[in-house]
Amino acid sequence: MDTLDAYKEHLREIGKLESALSLLHWDQRTNLPRKGNAARSEVIGKLTKMVFGLSVSDKLGEYLDNLQGRDDLSEVERASVRVVGKAYRRHKAIPPAFYEEYAVAASRSETAWEEAKEKSDFGLFKPHLARMVEYARKFAEYYGYVDSPYDALIEEFEPGMTSAELKTIIEPLRDELVPFIKRLMEEGKRPEDGFMQGTFPEEMQRELSLKALAAMNYDFDAGRLDTTVHPFTTTIGPSDVRITTRFLPENILSGLASSMHEGGHALYDQGIPDELRWSGLDEGASFGIHESQSRMWENLVGRSRPFWKFFAPIAGEVVPQLSGVSAEDLYRAVNIVKPSLVRVEADEVTYNLHIMLRFELEEGLITGKIDVSHLPDLWRDAMKRYLGVVPDDDAHGVLQDVHWSSGLFGYFPSYMLGNLYSAQFFAAAHKDIEDLDAKIAEGRLSELLAWLRENIHRYGKMYEPKELIERVTGQAPDSSYFVRYIVDKYTDVYDLH
Amino acid sequence: MDTLDAYKEHLREIGKLESALSLLHWDQRTNLPRKGNAARSEVIGKLTKMVFGLSVSDKLGEYLDNLQGRDDLSEVERASVRVVGKAYRRHKAIPPAFYEEYAVAASRSETAWEEAKEKSDFGLFKPHLARMVEYARKFAEYYGYVDSPYDALIEEFEPGMTSAELKTIIEPLRDELVPFIKRLMEEGKRPEDGFMQGTFPEEMQRELSLKALAAMNYDFDAGRLDTTVHPFTTTIGPSDVRITTRFLPENILSGLASSMHEGGHALYDQGIPDELRWSGLDEGASFGIHESQSRMWENLVGRSRPFWKFFAPIAGEVVPQLSGVSAEDLYRAVNIVKPSLVRVEADEVTYNLHIMLRFELEEGLITGKIDVSHLPDLWRDAMKRYLGVVPDDDAHGVLQDVHWSSGLFGYFPSYMLGNLYSAQFFAAAHKDIEDLDAKIAEGRLSELLAWLRENIHRYGKMYEPKELIERVTGQAPDSSYFVRYIVDKYTDVYDLH
Repeated sequence: MDTLDAYKEHLREIGKLESALSLLHWDQRTNLPRKGNAARSEVIGKLTKMVFGLSVSDKLGEYLDNLQGRDDLSEVERASVRVVGKAYRRHKAIPPAFYEEYAVAASRSETAWEEAKEKSDFGLFKPHLARMVEYARKFAEYYGYVDSPYDALIEEFEPGMTSAELKTIIEPLRDELVPFIKRLMEEGKRPEDGFMQGTFPEEMQRELSLKALAAMNYDFDAGRLDTTVHPFTTTIGPSDVRITTRFLPENILSGLASSMHEGGHALYDQGIPDELRWSGLDEGASFGIHESQSRMWENLVGRSRPFWKFFAPIAGEVVPQLSGVSAEDLYRAVNIVKPSLVRVEADEVTYNLHIMLRFELEEGLITGKIDVSHLPDLWRDAMKRYLGVVPDDDAHGVLQDVHWSSGLFGYFPSYMLGNLYSAQFFAAAHKDIEDLDAKIAEGRLSELLAWLRENIHRYGKMYEPKELIERVTGQAPDSSYFVRYIVDKYTDVYDLH
Repeated sequence: MDTLDAYKEHLREIGKLESALSLLHWDQRTNLPRKGNAARSEVIGKLTKMVFGLSVSDKLGEYLDNLQGRDDLSEVERASVRVVGKAYRRHKAIPPAFYEEYAVAASRSETAWEEAKEKSDFGLFKPHLARMVEYARKFAEYYGYVDSPYDALIEEFEPGMTSAELKTIIEPLRDELVPFIKRLMEEGKRPEDGFMQGTFPEEMQRELSLKALAAMNYDFDAGRLDTTVHPFTTTIGPSDVRITTRFLPENILSGLASSMHEGGHALYDQGIPDELRWSGLDEGASFGIHESQSRMWENLVGRSRPFWKFFAPIAGEVVPQLSGVSAEDLYRAVNIVKPSLVRVEADEVTYNLHIMLRFELEEGLITGKIDVSHLPDLWRDAMKRYLGVVPDDDAHGVLQDVHWSSGLFGYFPSYMLGNLYSAQFFAAAHKDIEDLDAKIAEGRLSELLAWLRENIHRYGKMYEPKELIERVTGQAPDSSYFVRYIVDKYTDVYDLH
């Protein structure tokens, strides 16, 4: 067999095992009976090990060496070799014994975090977190970096991003957002949302989500909607991209927003062409780019005035209590801003500040500027400065997120970048699509989706985030689109003058 | 590593992959979106190939060779080596190229059968069936046999059974059942069941099934109930045994019976101890023994007078239309006998005759006494002789079952054996458990389950069917228990004198 064919076959083998793994994970969180968990972990462990074995195998290394020198490859093949080769080198950089040691420590740390959060006792988690920071720093050394060890970590989630660049993004963003939020809260007029109070049966909420997903052109023949505790999207195969959501009995908006958010992720993966399947390129360009799709559908579409012009009558049909409410009132009610303690409950205006805070702290931990023991105080300080609210306990402060407990440093910025990218993409879509707002107001969301397919989805992981953004928008990543979007929208919604 | 440890590790590896495969199959039939099917087939193909590779690997052969000579093994380990060794030899007997050729032909044959059944045109299926018979005969030659090639095939489903023995079972059974059914139809008084006519919403039917399964002590923490087109039970892991059922809107009994049938299969697998997990012994002793469990719960319990004494009030609560009906009337109504054309719709009295007919025909095909072209006529003849009904078309005759289309010969007898074994086991349970009927009438089904666990379930595949039956009942397999059960029960239900 030709090396190229053997290489592709090798990737297909990995892809098939990963597909089985995705199903095992999805099922674990949706259907698995309680007592089946122990055996499931073993099965997942086994398949994970097999995938890892294949992804660091000497055979793959030889294929990559051979193919990197060849000039007869297509653009897709070259991208595959680049992306797979990079992952290969990163995997190979980590000594297996070190990784196993880390995995054991991470599992213990997660358990300790759970207990610490339960008891709101940072002391229980502190030694584990210190250990996770140490591991992360060693990972960074193994991976290698130019300026900051943090760069070696963020590379996993946002290829090409650095902490230096993040700082240049964050500073002006913070300088705009912090005073703007203050003004909103002090001078703005909070929209009325009394008509959204009530209790909403799960079946009703489910129907509302299904209507929104159908309007988004989510393909139910290549996916499904289930419920779970923490919503997520799973790509089991190229035509099997499943959404989960959760419905809060007393909050009709939360489940809808969650479904549209996950729907945005799912549209991305449903839009990756069959040509890229099992090539190492059949996923989003980065965590940040993926988040840009979910946030675009959740916020820039799902919380927009045109969308509610279209969706208000539908919502009124499904939810009787909303049937008399105007589109404008609904639009305003879904856009209430409230600085709060918990990231996952934050609105689109305050959300990025939660991320900035985390970035500052984790970057400090990894570079050694911050000691673990100072985290709770630093957290409270930053919350006060950024959002004007301070947690009473660490459960609602430094202990709220799971990420650090398993050593995930460098992940948080993706959430913020997703917000920024989404605004820049949406602005580009507005340029390219005539009367996009009017189309959305008529429920013709397919034109936006076609644009995303054409400009973003179809490339999968072929381009790094920056290159993709330049190709799509003709510009380098630029946070001013997001600032403009937020300031314009909320000046209006909150009647600022 | 010691050979024994290496052997066990090898089996655990197979077990884990098989667990993933079971989930992939279950999901395919319950949750998979339509467009995900193509990739799913590839993933299943890949894992199946991996499992097959491991189960015929030279390494496994060496382990087995080494262990077969060792006298320091426990009883479980010896049984494992025997069972795994036998499967290994059968797998190794088939040349891979032959198997692949067969697999392609079988897939084509299944498609042809589907079309032939759809059009009720046996001619479309005939050449494929002839080919499947040829393949089955070659399989038999590869496996080897003493008396009849058919024996080599049935061995797969019912270890130790032969066609000669089947004939000695079938003849007296047929001689009892055929005239008894004639008498029932001519002289018996068909029970009244008008009160069961109506339309029953799926949610109501589901609740009824859940109540029955709860009464059976099916462990919902180690399983779940879903709906599908063709009901089945899947064992994904030792504590993850899932049931599917289907609810017919106009037949309240059908879904309940199907749930109790699958529940019986599931109780067996839930009862296999952790000690046997991934040892090659963590499944039922045979297809026939497995079917004895499903049929016991479906019929000997679920269609018994004591069960309905207990279950009538529950059914009346869940199904308002049944609330005024007496336990005795319900008991009689669920035991209506009607000779019919289609096996899967047959009652417990006529069911075995459908199997006898199939055994005669397939045994004739495999031994060469019957030519494929005569099948439709032979089918009609036998239906007339056994059940007094004759199909108008082949779709309701020789084309009704899927089994032969993929070359599954030797499978059908398991259904009959399950019925026979169930009666023999149930008689033994009655001997061992004081006042079993009274306990069932009080809904105390746990004592029967405990007896099954103790005598059957906990051994998994450690004993071949005959040995197991002798251990449990103190007797060789004996069909007279079943005959007595049927004759006694239906003489009463149909008021024969």
